[in-house]
Amino acid sequence: MFRPILRTPLPLRGALLPRSPILLLHNTYVTTSIVPPTVPIPAFLVDEPPHPQIITTDIPGLQSRKAITKLEQVFDTRSLNMICDYENSVGNYLSDVDGNVGSLEVGVGYAQIASIPLGYNNPALMYTATSPEMASTLINRPALGNFPPHTWSTILTTGILSVAPHGLNQVFTGMSGSDANETAYKAAFMFYRRISRGEDVDFSSQDLTSCMNNQSPGSPELSILSFKKAFHGRLFATLSTTRSKPIHKVDIPAFDWPQASFPALKYPLDSHVEENRKEEDRCLAEIESILTTWKNPIAACVVEPIQSEGGDNHATPYFFQALRQITKKHGVLLIVDEVQTGVGATGKFWAHDHWDLQTPPDMVTFAKKAQTAGYYFGNPLLRPNRPYRQFNTWMGDPARALLFRTIIEEIKKNDLVTKAAQTGGYLYSLLESLARKYPEEIQNLRGKGQGTFIAWDSPRRDEFLRTMKFAGVNIGGSGEHAVRLRPMLIFGERHVRAIDQVLSGEIKAR
Amino acid sequence: MFRPILRTPLPLRGALLPRSPILLLHNTYVTTSIVPPTVPIPAFLVDEPPHPQIITTDIPGLQSRKAITKLEQVFDTRSLNMICDYENSVGNYLSDVDGNVGSLEVGVGYAQIASIPLGYNNPALMYTATSPEMASTLINRPALGNFPPHTWSTILTTGILSVAPHGLNQVFTGMSGSDANETAYKAAFMFYRRISRGEDVDFSSQDLTSCMNNQSPGSPELSILSFKKAFHGRLFATLSTTRSKPIHKVDIPAFDWPQASFPALKYPLDSHVEENRKEEDRCLAEIESILTTWKNPIAACVVEPIQSEGGDNHATPYFFQALRQITKKHGVLLIVDEVQTGVGATGKFWAHDHWDLQTPPDMVTFAKKAQTAGYYFGNPLLRPNRPYRQFNTWMGDPARALLFRTIIEEIKKNDLVTKAAQTGGYLYSLLESLARKYPEEIQNLRGKGQGTFIAWDSPRRDEFLRTMKFAGVNIGGSGEHAVRLRPMLIFGERHVRAIDQVLSGEIKAR
Repeated sequence: MFRPILRTPLPLRGALLPRSPILLLHNTYVTTSIVPPTVPIPAFLVDEPPHPQIITTDIPGLQSRKAITKLEQVFDTRSLNMICDYENSVGNYLSDVDGNVGSLEVGVGYAQIASIPLGYNNPALMYTATSPEMASTLINRPALGNFPPHTWSTILTTGILSVAPHGLNQVFTGMSGSDANETAYKAAFMFYRRISRGEDVDFSSQDLTSCMNNQSPGSPELSILSFKKAFHGRLFATLSTTRSKPIHKVDIPAFDWPQASFPALKYPLDSHVEENRKEEDRCLAEIESILTTWKNPIAACVVEPIQSEGGDNHATPYFFQALRQITKKHGVLLIVDEVQTGVGATGKFWAHDHWDLQTPPDMVTFAKKAQTAGYYFGNPLLRPNRPYRQFNTWMGDPARALLFRTIIEEIKKNDLVTKAAQTGGYLYSLLESLARKYPEEIQNLRGKGQGTFIAWDSPRRDEFLRTMKFAGVNIGGSGEHAVRLRPMLIFGERHVRAIDQVLSGEIKAR
Repeated sequence: MFRPILRTPLPLRGALLPRSPILLLHNTYVTTSIVPPTVPIPAFLVDEPPHPQIITTDIPGLQSRKAITKLEQVFDTRSLNMICDYENSVGNYLSDVDGNVGSLEVGVGYAQIASIPLGYNNPALMYTATSPEMASTLINRPALGNFPPHTWSTILTTGILSVAPHGLNQVFTGMSGSDANETAYKAAFMFYRRISRGEDVDFSSQDLTSCMNNQSPGSPELSILSFKKAFHGRLFATLSTTRSKPIHKVDIPAFDWPQASFPALKYPLDSHVEENRKEEDRCLAEIESILTTWKNPIAACVVEPIQSEGGDNHATPYFFQALRQITKKHGVLLIVDEVQTGVGATGKFWAHDHWDLQTPPDMVTFAKKAQTAGYYFGNPLLRPNRPYRQFNTWMGDPARALLFRTIIEEIKKNDLVTKAAQTGGYLYSLLESLARKYPEEIQNLRGKGQGTFIAWDSPRRDEFLRTMKFAGVNIGGSGEHAVRLRPMLIFGERHVRAIDQVLSGEIKAR
């Protein structure tokens, strides 16, 4: 089975790896007896391959390697995973130019870094993408702040705002997750200064002159509080709140903003209730201490419902409820970054719906699966006191807003949030039973009741991911040791079974 | 002709203004005898209205006001200009929901803040927008850094890179002008630190730990030098280099970065050669002084070829040649921000082509008329030493890159850069002759030989703009007193004549 090592232009060679992931799990296991939910398969998934199908020995294969060599001349390909054939991809299955039609997209890094909600070549999205409205929007791209199309109000109310988080009814639209967070931070700073000045008090002449020199008071020394291991983007202010990995941050100037500990819970949660409560209380005390003692005023605290890039770190509703109370008490805005958690995958449309907050977050940011981006808010004072303060040329993208509207319609029509909860429950049960059998391989399993937002730690994480990849199952890692599942909303029971069958060696991709 | 003042929800009422802009120019002038170039009208412009046509008394009209009231509930409309009917707009003419089909787009603020190159409902763009490739790209949006489509290399080389500025052959793609500049700044900082460390020297452990706390040396105290009155965007780092107006900057924390004077030239240039040279030398000396004495090292200097938001301020090739020499001498990268000046309107594809530089800029950023965005570069060391340092989820937008490719093809096919130079020359001559007649109304006319990138100062600027608007000619202002023309690339001789006829009162929009 093992062939001699050959030098190839790219490091991964399937032939050098165990042919079945079962080898990673030490011995054969029998497909578990967990009963899957009976969920009908949406019609548009009937064209999917029956299971992962990989025909090349190497990934990337020969054609991909040729294409990479060509692309490398003009585009950095070092982070490249495969050269995709999107026209021949379908549903949960991504194809490459080597004819591998069966890469089942399960984890992050995959499904386009968790940004594809309805699968490849979804017919409803195709219908929208080929509509006259889409064509007009693409070729007559408006500067939304000055010249919105007459359809903009309807696009917003029937689309983006139809799924506004509870208590929020306004949106500022943007282009990407980083953009959404950066503009939310700007809104927070303008709000903070408005409140400090007095709601109707105008800028001082000192404000107006000093800001032109980037000096306070016009350019105020205010902060955003974020959490250790957080990820909020890679532009300068968002990167100052990102604390995921040094490689994301090194060499880039940053604002001197504070960070607090995010709870490090122990698993299984049921067996560590008391310890975990203590850990969350420790973090909450730390947060309150920073809010009251940090050298500069803190305008907002930004938090992910589940820290995704940082290793899939969860906290309980108790923690978030207390965080909301503390921020409110100290007049600090709470920004919930739902760029990765939003749009259904946790089994609720917004992950923070799990928290049962008494007071909603002040802003909720979104991107990725929404295909468009922005921040929701409710307090009218978060609209700046003057026009042209929160403004830019395009202010979002109506073409993507049209796609999000169709995504929302499809989610509702096919009840995909409920299905994500059901599929996630089934997947979690399966993994829980595997974790009992192989406690060394599957540690700290997390995401119970959080839809398909499931992760675990593995001492041989990278080996496991590679092996799965060569078996036609794309799963990504995060943090140091986490295996992170982040499938699409159309990932269902039969896909869970396909993974189970790959793990057990019952089916082989090749 | 004048009707009594009525309170309306919006301040502008056409009836309260002079019905013909001629009234602003004090007396009737005869259409000038400047001979227009004989440029054939592109076929796709035959459907344009013959001249501006405004049918409502108020702008915005009744239907627009109703739509604004509705939109205001969910979207800040204070910067709104009109509610557009893009489906019924054509070429240079923008329609609104009140049936005003003849707003001739001439100035910035208009043409979607100078971001529409080929006119509304351009048939070539429509062809691309309705292609199967566009549909696939829209509904299967790739994470380009990980999973590029197999067509990406070709899309880049036949599109974005086919017009790469002289000496540059690589591109990092982004989403907007701000995004392009911010990522260029990141590239500059990583480059600076790479050179200081030694090209192959790895990060120190102190770098890696300190950056996680946003502290130096990992988060280094480095600067970007920009110019007074510059505009480079509104995210946090770009806003730190933007120095246009206090309302853009106030209340937002900023990096403590330096600014230098941009030449304030006197017009007409021919009559002030010596003074202007002295002014440019003064600015150059100031720049060199800042580069050598600023408290923190300066990684890059960013400059617009023509400061656009700041009032259309020009400098001569001499200034830019010297700026390139000085930055090179001090090991500081030169970033040319062509977000507004790029893609043909100055009569060259890139405005900096006018400078005849011996050494190209290190990076050139683009957006707006390109519909996509990013920065060009040539030095391979500007690709960071490791993958995932310059990275984000989408890394640009292939759908918009497809549109840029078609824009480039149409520009070449119709020779639109040459035409912009010709039309601009004709327009400039017309304005020059008007300026001789009305020296009080048209001051500091600038943009000679710069295509349609023309501006002047007017003591009654806002009144002039309003009057033109009610005559069906959309022109915007910039800075304190500037009237700024920024038409599309398909703005031709007959549109110049229409303006001339509106100015002279020969034709009336109503």
